[in-house]
Amino acid sequence: MLPQWIIEKKRDGQTLTEEEIRFFIDAYAKEKLPDYQMAAMAMAIFIRGMNPKEIAILTDAMMRSGDLINTSSIKKPKVDKHSTGGIGDKVSLILAPLVAACGLAVPMISGRGLGITGGTLDKLESIPGYRTNLSDAELIRVIKKIGCSIIGQTKQLAPADKKLYALRDVTGTVASIPLITASIMCKKLAEGLDGLLLDVKCGKGAFMRTQKDARALALTMVRVGNAMGKRMAAVITDMNQTLGNTAGNVLEVVESIETLQNRGPKDLTELTLVSAEEMLILGRITKSRATARAMAEKALADGSAFRIFRKMVELQGGDVRTIDDPSRLAQAKFKVPMPAPASGFVSLADAESVGKACVVLGAGRTRTDEAVDPAVGISHILHIGDAVTKGAPLLVIHANDKKRLAAAQELLKGAFKIAKSKPKTPKLILERINGETIGK
Amino acid sequence: MLPQWIIEKKRDGQTLTEEEIRFFIDAYAKEKLPDYQMAAMAMAIFIRGMNPKEIAILTDAMMRSGDLINTSSIKKPKVDKHSTGGIGDKVSLILAPLVAACGLAVPMISGRGLGITGGTLDKLESIPGYRTNLSDAELIRVIKKIGCSIIGQTKQLAPADKKLYALRDVTGTVASIPLITASIMCKKLAEGLDGLLLDVKCGKGAFMRTQKDARALALTMVRVGNAMGKRMAAVITDMNQTLGNTAGNVLEVVESIETLQNRGPKDLTELTLVSAEEMLILGRITKSRATARAMAEKALADGSAFRIFRKMVELQGGDVRTIDDPSRLAQAKFKVPMPAPASGFVSLADAESVGKACVVLGAGRTRTDEAVDPAVGISHILHIGDAVTKGAPLLVIHANDKKRLAAAQELLKGAFKIAKSKPKTPKLILERINGETIGK
Repeated sequence: MLPQWIIEKKRDGQTLTEEEIRFFIDAYAKEKLPDYQMAAMAMAIFIRGMNPKEIAILTDAMMRSGDLINTSSIKKPKVDKHSTGGIGDKVSLILAPLVAACGLAVPMISGRGLGITGGTLDKLESIPGYRTNLSDAELIRVIKKIGCSIIGQTKQLAPADKKLYALRDVTGTVASIPLITASIMCKKLAEGLDGLLLDVKCGKGAFMRTQKDARALALTMVRVGNAMGKRMAAVITDMNQTLGNTAGNVLEVVESIETLQNRGPKDLTELTLVSAEEMLILGRITKSRATARAMAEKALADGSAFRIFRKMVELQGGDVRTIDDPSRLAQAKFKVPMPAPASGFVSLADAESVGKACVVLGAGRTRTDEAVDPAVGISHILHIGDAVTKGAPLLVIHANDKKRLAAAQELLKGAFKIAKSKPKTPKLILERINGETIGK
Repeated sequence: MLPQWIIEKKRDGQTLTEEEIRFFIDAYAKEKLPDYQMAAMAMAIFIRGMNPKEIAILTDAMMRSGDLINTSSIKKPKVDKHSTGGIGDKVSLILAPLVAACGLAVPMISGRGLGITGGTLDKLESIPGYRTNLSDAELIRVIKKIGCSIIGQTKQLAPADKKLYALRDVTGTVASIPLITASIMCKKLAEGLDGLLLDVKCGKGAFMRTQKDARALALTMVRVGNAMGKRMAAVITDMNQTLGNTAGNVLEVVESIETLQNRGPKDLTELTLVSAEEMLILGRITKSRATARAMAEKALADGSAFRIFRKMVELQGGDVRTIDDPSRLAQAKFKVPMPAPASGFVSLADAESVGKACVVLGAGRTRTDEAVDPAVGISHILHIGDAVTKGAPLLVIHANDKKRLAAAQELLKGAFKIAKSKPKTPKLILERINGETIGK
C-alpha cells in the first residue's frame, strides 16, 4: 500500500477504508510519511469531504497516535465542554466548577488563544502560580478532590493532530469540517469522557460565519462522537458581539469570579447555565432540563461553584489571594474609555473588532510562540440594545503602551453604532442539538 | 502575499492571477516555498483545473525558473516534436534527421524512459560513444552543420519542473492536464522554437487511455502553445499495439536505421511521414501537405535523411561503424521466439504487455536512477491483422538472463490472440489537430 494510492482515492472522491486511514495517520505520526503527502491528502479531504464513518476513523486514529488519559478510576460521570472559540468566551472557567458542584467530573484540557480568539489557558495563567501542566496523576487527584481540573495539552496527546494542525495552517486546509472535527474530537476524546458538549459559535467573531455552517459542523461532530460511543450534545451560539463585558486575560478572570459569585453579566450567566443543563443531562445527573437548571442556579447562588473554582486554583498552585481580592491581579497602566458619539441605543457592537483590538493590545497572539500580556484588554463593553448617553463609555481600553492603545482605538472606530430607537436584542442561544434532535 | 492565500483561491476554484502564479513557482524554484505547500497547490490544481491562460503563465513561469537555450543564431525555422510516450516509439530518431533534410532546424531535447515507456536518450546511448550531454554551443554547432541534434536535458533547464515532477509522482497529482501541459511545454519551449508538433498517444500502452482524454490534452497543449506565441499542431495516435516491430534500445536503433534507409515497417514509416508533413507546415517550408509529403518521402528514398542521422552520430561522438554495420551493436545472449498457438490472424497484440516485458528484461527502468541494458528487448513483433501459422513466431525475446526471460514469457502470455478470420486493422493516426482544426 503506497500513500499516493490512498491520496488518489480521496482525490477522486472515493471513500477510504479503515485500514487506509489508519495506515496514513499512523505513518504520519511516526514521521514515516512526509508533510507533502499529508498536505496533498488534506487538500483532497478539504475538497472531496469525508463521510461520518471516515471522520470517526480519522478521529480515532489521530487520538491513538498519542497517549490516552486513563480516567477510569474516577467514578463520577465524566463530561466536558468544547467551544470553537469566540471573543470574551470565558464560560469554561465558570462552567467546570459549576457542573462539578452538581456532581460531574470535568477533566478539561484546554488550549491557548490564537488570532482573535482567546484561550482558557492564557486566562488561567494570568493568576500568579496557576499550573496548567499537571501530570495525569495530579489531574486525577484534583478531580477526585473537587470534581474538575482545567489544564493544558501534554506533549503526548494526539501528536498527529499537533503536526496536522500546523500543516493545515500553511496549506489552505483549515476550514474543513472533517479536519476540524477530527482535530477537536481526537483531543477531547483522549480524556476518557462519557459525554461532551460542543459550543459552536457563529457570527463575525467566530470561525463559522453563518448558522448554517455552524450547524453543519455541530451535526458532524455530534454524529462522529456518537459513532465513537460517546454521548454528545451541541449548542449553537451567537458570536457577533462579545460574550460578557470583558475581553482580555485578567479582565476575563475577574468577570468569571463575579459570575461564579452570581453577579455576572446576563448573557454570560445564561450561556453558562444552558451549557450546564446540557452537561448534567449528558452526565445523567437528571433527565429533566428544569431540574438541571435549578441545580446549576443553586450552585451559583449558594457559592458552591465559586468555592470549587477557588479550590482548583489553590490545588493547582495559584495564588488564592488574587481570587479573594482580584485587584491584586495584573493591572494595565492606561485605562481609557471610548465615549459614545451620540445618545441612543447600541445597534452594533462588533466582536471581531474587539478581538483584533485585544490582539493589538497584546492580550492575544498571532503566532503560537508569542507571549501574551495578562493585564491588557477591553472592559465595560456595551451590548446591542444597551442605552447610552453621548460621551459615556461604550467600553474601556486597558493598555500598557500608548502606541498599542492608539492602534486599538483605530481598530475600534466604527465597531460600535448608536441608533435612536432601541434595536431588537439578538438571540444568544440559536439552537440546541442533542439526542432528540438528531433522532437517537 | 502568503502562499496559503494563493492555495486557498485555487482550492475554491478561482482563477489565479499572473502575479500569483509567478510568485508561487518562483518561490518554489528558489527553495523558498516548501514541498508541502506545492503539494497542496498541485492537488487543488488537479481537482479544480486551470484555464488556458493560467496554464500558459504556469508554463512560462516554470520555463523561466531555469536557463533558456539561445537558438537565435540559427536562421532556419526551428520546429520540434514531442511524444507523450509509447511502446516502440522510435519516431524521433528518424524524424529529426528527416525534417532536417527538408530544411528545418530541430534542437531536440529528449528524456530517458520510465516505466513501460522507452526513452529516446536510452536508445541513442546504446550507440557506443554517443554523447547526449552537449553544451549549448556544441548543440548549435551540430544543428548549424546538419540541421538537427538530439540531446538530453541539462541541469539548468526548468528546475521548477524537475522538482514538481518528482513531487507529483508521490502525491497523487500526476494525471492532471494543466500540470502535464506545463511540464511538457516548459521544457520544449525553452528550446527557442518557432513551432512544435505533439504526438499524443492513446490506448493501453499510453498514459492517456482514451481518444477523448488524449484530445483534451492535445487541445490544451496546442492552445497554451499558441497563447505563448508558438505555432502548434498535434496528432493523436493509437498505442494499443507496439509501434514498429521492435521494443528495446539497440533493437529500436536498428529499426530506425532500416526506416531511414526506406525499408522500415509500414506503421512506423507512416507515422514518421505524417509527423514530417505537420512539422514542415509548422516550419512554413510549404503550405501544402502533398508537397510536404513528397519532400519527406524523397528524403527517405534518396538517403539524405539517413546521411544526416549518420553525421549526427559522428558529430556527437558515436561510433559510426555501428551505424554502417548494426550487428556491431550490443547483442543479447538469448534470442527466443514466442510461437503462435494456432494458425490464423493476429487479433490482439497488447503494447502494455510488451512494454512490461521490456522492463522485466532490463530494457526499461522503474526508478530514475536505474541503468538499462541496451541489448535486451523484443523484436519481430506481429501486428493486428498479420497472418501467422501455428508455431511461427509472434515475436522474438532478446534476453541476457534466464530468469528475466521466463518472467517476460509469463508477462507475454495472453498478450497476443489469434482469430480465424482477419480482423479490421486498427487506425494508427486517429486525429490531426492544427491551426485549421482549432479555428485559428
